[in-house]
Amino acid sequence: MARKVYILGGCQTDFARNWKKEDKHMSEVFKEVINGVIQETQLEPSDIEVAHVGNFAAELYCMQGQLGAFFLEADPAFYGLPTSRHEAACASGSIAALAATAEIEAGRYQVACVVGVEQMKTVSPKVGGDYLGTAAWYEQEAKDIELPFPKLFGRLGDVYDERYGLKYEHLAAISKINYDNAKRNPLAQTRAWYAEKELNVLENPENPTIGGKIRLSDCSQITDGAVAVLLASEEFATNYANRRNLALADIPYIKGWGHHTAPFRFDDKLEESKGQRYVFPHVRATITDAFKRAGIADVSELDGIETHDCFTTSEYMAIDHFGITEPGESWKAIEEGVIEIGGKTPINPSGGLIGAGHPVGATGVRQLLDAQRQVARTAEGYQVEGVNNFATLNIGGSGTTSVSFIVSRD
Amino acid sequence: MARKVYILGGCQTDFARNWKKEDKHMSEVFKEVINGVIQETQLEPSDIEVAHVGNFAAELYCMQGQLGAFFLEADPAFYGLPTSRHEAACASGSIAALAATAEIEAGRYQVACVVGVEQMKTVSPKVGGDYLGTAAWYEQEAKDIELPFPKLFGRLGDVYDERYGLKYEHLAAISKINYDNAKRNPLAQTRAWYAEKELNVLENPENPTIGGKIRLSDCSQITDGAVAVLLASEEFATNYANRRNLALADIPYIKGWGHHTAPFRFDDKLEESKGQRYVFPHVRATITDAFKRAGIADVSELDGIETHDCFTTSEYMAIDHFGITEPGESWKAIEEGVIEIGGKTPINPSGGLIGAGHPVGATGVRQLLDAQRQVARTAEGYQVEGVNNFATLNIGGSGTTSVSFIVSRD
Repeated sequence: MARKVYILGGCQTDFARNWKKEDKHMSEVFKEVINGVIQETQLEPSDIEVAHVGNFAAELYCMQGQLGAFFLEADPAFYGLPTSRHEAACASGSIAALAATAEIEAGRYQVACVVGVEQMKTVSPKVGGDYLGTAAWYEQEAKDIELPFPKLFGRLGDVYDERYGLKYEHLAAISKINYDNAKRNPLAQTRAWYAEKELNVLENPENPTIGGKIRLSDCSQITDGAVAVLLASEEFATNYANRRNLALADIPYIKGWGHHTAPFRFDDKLEESKGQRYVFPHVRATITDAFKRAGIADVSELDGIETHDCFTTSEYMAIDHFGITEPGESWKAIEEGVIEIGGKTPINPSGGLIGAGHPVGATGVRQLLDAQRQVARTAEGYQVEGVNNFATLNIGGSGTTSVSFIVSRD
Repeated sequence: MARKVYILGGCQTDFARNWKKEDKHMSEVFKEVINGVIQETQLEPSDIEVAHVGNFAAELYCMQGQLGAFFLEADPAFYGLPTSRHEAACASGSIAALAATAEIEAGRYQVACVVGVEQMKTVSPKVGGDYLGTAAWYEQEAKDIELPFPKLFGRLGDVYDERYGLKYEHLAAISKINYDNAKRNPLAQTRAWYAEKELNVLENPENPTIGGKIRLSDCSQITDGAVAVLLASEEFATNYANRRNLALADIPYIKGWGHHTAPFRFDDKLEESKGQRYVFPHVRATITDAFKRAGIADVSELDGIETHDCFTTSEYMAIDHFGITEPGESWKAIEEGVIEIGGKTPINPSGGLIGAGHPVGATGVRQLLDAQRQVARTAEGYQVEGVNNFATLNIGGSGTTSVSFIVSRD
C-alpha cells in the first residue's frame, strides 16, 4: 500500500503576464511562486526538503538548463536543497509531480515543492511553433512544417470524423465553455479577452482553419506561467493540520494516478488503435489506472476534471476516454451541458489550456493545483459544488505521454 | 528503511562512435542499448515496467524533446510503458536513476530501465560550447563567452591555488591516469588516441590554456553516447538470481546515495564556501549523505570511485571531497598512486569523462553501470580487485547539482 501524498497548497502566476515585457528573469518568477506557496501554507523555507521542476524546453525558449538550481535564488535557506527537472513535453508538470510523489512515498523526504514553469513569449509564434515541434518526432512530423501541432490535433478530429462523425459546432462549444469559464478565474490568460465571441463563428475570416477542423479559436494559448505546489507525507500533513486546528480529512491528497506512453508518431498511434474501442488506448489506460489506484469504479464518482485541451479535439477525446459518454459520443455530453460548471462532470472550470493558458511545462502542475483548490473548496469564482474527487489529465505530444491524477478528500 | 534497488545489468555504446557520421537517429541507438541490456540480463521486454531517460539538451543538439517515447521504438512490447526524461545538466543521468530508484522504493514498479543519452556531435565545437553554457546561468555566466565551462573550472583551479597552492603537474597527472585507464576500456572514446602523450606537456603549443590552468588535455571529451541499466526491486532480483542459480548477494545493489544543489553562479558558490572546510560544501554533503545511507564510515571502506572529471580540476576537487586526503592535499594522493588502478582508492578505472568520454546526460548512468561492473567483477580490462563498495560522483554545472551513489554487494 503506497503512502499518501497530501497537497498542502500552491501558488500560480497570472497567466496573462508577459515576463519579457516586465523584464523579469525566470529566476524572479521562481521566487514569486515559491514565496507565494510558503506564504499560503505559513511554512518556513527550511520545511521544504526537496524540489522538482517541470519544464518542457527552457533550453530553446530561454537558453537555460538545470532549472532546479533557480530554487536556491528564492531563499538562502534552500542552499543544499536536492533539485531536479523533469520533462515529457506538455506533460512535464505531471512528470515532475510523479517524481516528487515517488520520493515522498519512498520515505526519502517529508515535503516536496514542485514548480511547473514555461516562459514562451520570448520568440515569434512561428519560431515557437517550431520549438513545440520537438514535442513530436521532430524530423518526421515537424521539421519544415508550419505549426505542426494544430495539424496533428486536426488529424485527431479527422479520426473522430471518420470513425464516428464530428460536427465543428461541438468543437466550437468546447472552446466557448473554456473561454467562458476562464472569465471566472482571476489568473486566466484570456479572462479579459472579448474577441473570442466573434472568433467562434465558422465563417469568420479572422478564425482561419489551421489543420483539419482546427481553427484559431480551437487552440490553446502561448503563455508565460509558473505554478508551485507543496506536497507532503501523511506524517507531515497530520502535524500541519493539527497546528492549524484542521482535520486531516480537509487536506486534499493524491488518491490515484496513471501514466502511460503511446508510440511517438501520430501515424503509429492510429495504426495501433485501429479496431480498438478507444482512439487513444493508452490515454484510456492512464485514466483507468488512476481510477483503480484511487478505488474509483468509474467517472460517475468524479466531481470534475481539469483536462488537457491543447486543442478542442483533445478535450473532445478526453470526454469519451474518461467514460463520460460511449466512445465517439462526446457530443452528447456537450449538448446536454454535462461538462459545464453546474453540469454532472464539469471539465476545465479554470478555463483549461484554451481559456486559462498553456505554459507548457507548468500545465500539469496548474491542473494539480486547480484540483487541490476544487477539493479544498477554495476555487472561489470557478468552484464546483461539493467536490470530493477531482481528476486531471495532462498529455505530452500528440497523445504520446499521458498522466492523470485523482485528488480527493476522505 | 528504504527498499533495496538492485542493478541487474547494463549496456553501453562505444563512446568513440559518431552517430551523425553513421547516419543513425537517436532512436536507433536507444534500440541498441535496450536490446543490449535485455540480451545481457536474458529478460523479456515485457519485464520492464517503467523507463526513465537522463538527457541534458537534446532540444538544442538534436531539436528533440520527450525522449522517453523513443523506448517504444525499440520493441512493440513497450507500447504503453510509462516513460519520462530527467535533467540536471551533466548530472542528468544520475537524476534519472534517482527518479527510477524512488519509484521502485515506493513499490510502484519492480523493474525500471534507465537510459542516459546524449548526441553532441551534431554541431561545431563553438556552438556546442555555447549549448553547454545552458548548464551554467547562461545570461550571466555563458552568453557571448567562448567555451564558458573550461573557464569556470579553470576558476576552480584558481581557488585551490589561492587556498592551498596547486601545481599544474598534478592536474596533468590526473589526465594522464584517465587517458591511461581508458586504454583498458574497450568502450572508451580515447582508447586508441596517442596524441595525448605529447599533448600533456605544459609548453606544447597544441595544448593551449583555455581557462585558468585548464589546458586542452585537462578537458573531457565531446561524445555521442548512450547507456542503459536495469534496476529491480529486491523481490524481482531474488527471483532473477534464483532462476540463474546466483546468490542474491552476488547482484550489486544501490546501498546509499546523496543529492544536493549549490547556488547556480560560481561566484555565489565561492562566496558561500569562504572559511568552510571544503571548497564545495554541498558536494561534500552529497558524498557524506551517500556514506551515511550506505552505513559506511568513510572513504576507507570504498574500493574505488567513478567521479566527474569534466576537467582535471573537478577530479582534483573530488579527491579531497571524498576524504581521500585532507582538504587541499589531493596532490598527495596523486603522487602516492592512491587513485591509480591498483592503488588504495582507484578513481575512474574506466578512464572517466576525460578518457572514456562525456556524453553529458549519459555520464551518470555510465558511472552507475561501471560501478555495477566493478562490484559484479565483470569490468575485465579495467577491473579493480576485490570490489565490495564502489562510489560514483556526478556533477551538473559548475558544481551546482551533485549526486553520488554507492553500489555494493553484501
